[in-house]
Amino acid sequence: MSKIGIIAGAGEFPLILVRKCIEKGVEPVVVAIKEEADESLNELVDGVFWQPVGKVGKILKFLRTAGVSEAIAAGKVNKMRIFRDIKPDLTAMRLLWSLRDRKDDTIMNKVADLLAGEGVTLLPQTKFMEDYLPEPEVFTKRTPTEEEKSDIEFGFHMAKEIGSLDIGQTVIVKRRAVLAVEAIEGTDSCILRGGSLGNGDVVVIKVSKPNQDLRFDVPAIGLQTIKSCIDARAKILAIEARKTFFFQKTESVRLANRHNISIVSF
Amino acid sequence: MSKIGIIAGAGEFPLILVRKCIEKGVEPVVVAIKEEADESLNELVDGVFWQPVGKVGKILKFLRTAGVSEAIAAGKVNKMRIFRDIKPDLTAMRLLWSLRDRKDDTIMNKVADLLAGEGVTLLPQTKFMEDYLPEPEVFTKRTPTEEEKSDIEFGFHMAKEIGSLDIGQTVIVKRRAVLAVEAIEGTDSCILRGGSLGNGDVVVIKVSKPNQDLRFDVPAIGLQTIKSCIDARAKILAIEARKTFFFQKTESVRLANRHNISIVSF
Repeated sequence: MSKIGIIAGAGEFPLILVRKCIEKGVEPVVVAIKEEADESLNELVDGVFWQPVGKVGKILKFLRTAGVSEAIAAGKVNKMRIFRDIKPDLTAMRLLWSLRDRKDDTIMNKVADLLAGEGVTLLPQTKFMEDYLPEPEVFTKRTPTEEEKSDIEFGFHMAKEIGSLDIGQTVIVKRRAVLAVEAIEGTDSCILRGGSLGNGDVVVIKVSKPNQDLRFDVPAIGLQTIKSCIDARAKILAIEARKTFFFQKTESVRLANRHNISIVSF
Repeated sequence: MSKIGIIAGAGEFPLILVRKCIEKGVEPVVVAIKEEADESLNELVDGVFWQPVGKVGKILKFLRTAGVSEAIAAGKVNKMRIFRDIKPDLTAMRLLWSLRDRKDDTIMNKVADLLAGEGVTLLPQTKFMEDYLPEPEVFTKRTPTEEEKSDIEFGFHMAKEIGSLDIGQTVIVKRRAVLAVEAIEGTDSCILRGGSLGNGDVVVIKVSKPNQDLRFDVPAIGLQTIKSCIDARAKILAIEARKTFFFQKTESVRLANRHNISIVSF
């Protein structure tokens, strides 16, 4: 049986990926980032290797020792930790020192290089995950109005520009004004801020970066995103078709319908 | 004696401008935006016309009746009000309906057109204000380190890009990562968020837009900006030389020195 390394960050994504691997007869070798990953990984596979994000050397050694030649980095690692409470080991310190900037892609490219140095190829996050990348569709009962469609288009353009700078992938718009731009705070905080600044009725747009490296940071939404949209009194959640993961779709659409929110991919 | 209309928004700027006009022998005809402007305008001139931001028709009529042919829009009007608690009159409603988007420049260009329709030319905010546009300088005892200079450069580039989209003019950076991007929340909120996300030691960069229309939204810092930097535990406040107003300089530099913050224009 072939093996695949899974470096598990936050959320549903690593759980889904592990299940998909098992379905396809691939053995998942799981490194779980202690600060981020869901403990229920332990219920899916034995021998999950739990490590803090700063222990890069240990993580690399584990994957090498396990004889893994391919890996997927699944689920977010909160970048704020790099500025706050990370305790880097020697390898992590070397990595941080060698960065020309701390954009997501810069950091992840270095991680990919380190893995390559251990003979491990980082695969696209979309591997095994085709089912979760929707085509253009309106998922909910409620469909966007013409006015809202124009906000989606405006926000799409703005979010692509922000993405091209590798700052973030989400913007919150109301009547063709940008209320909030995501940087390091994460999508949920950005949605809540935008909703509060606009006093509700906002449009949330999340897209992939123009030069999206599929190995990292493929945008994703799920049940938590819908909950944030409800708290922000958003009326639309729009994602980029074929390039955004939609996790927990059934529950998410059900919840969105109850709150008269449109979810669309376009 | 020649007259000039002053449409007074928030902060020190309208007060300073009114004083400058008087110094130069120009009579200021002041329309004060009720939600924003400082009441001490009443102490500087008689007959200040106080109106809520939504009463665009009344404001235009007042300037026309006063026989003003030139005006300056001084001081911010919080754009959030347009989404929250504005009560527009007919002229304001027509203005809002005619906008293709609600970017700052789109709104202000329409305001300038409305004024032009009344025979009033909107002048650059920099008129009479040369003393407040600093050359490149380090204002404080503390000067930026090489590492911090590189953050300033990185942030300058990012802020210019955000400015070119007419989203905002401020970014908060730490070790070449963008922690926060200003959109509609205003500079002070953005600084506080960035400081909190980065756990202090952040660099604040504020620039003009690449195609800055000097008639509106010339970036400005002052004592309140320094207070926000202190609360955010920022270490640098960097502004664009010749294109950013520095108000209350003496008090600001004094306060920054006490908190070991660098203020630089570059």
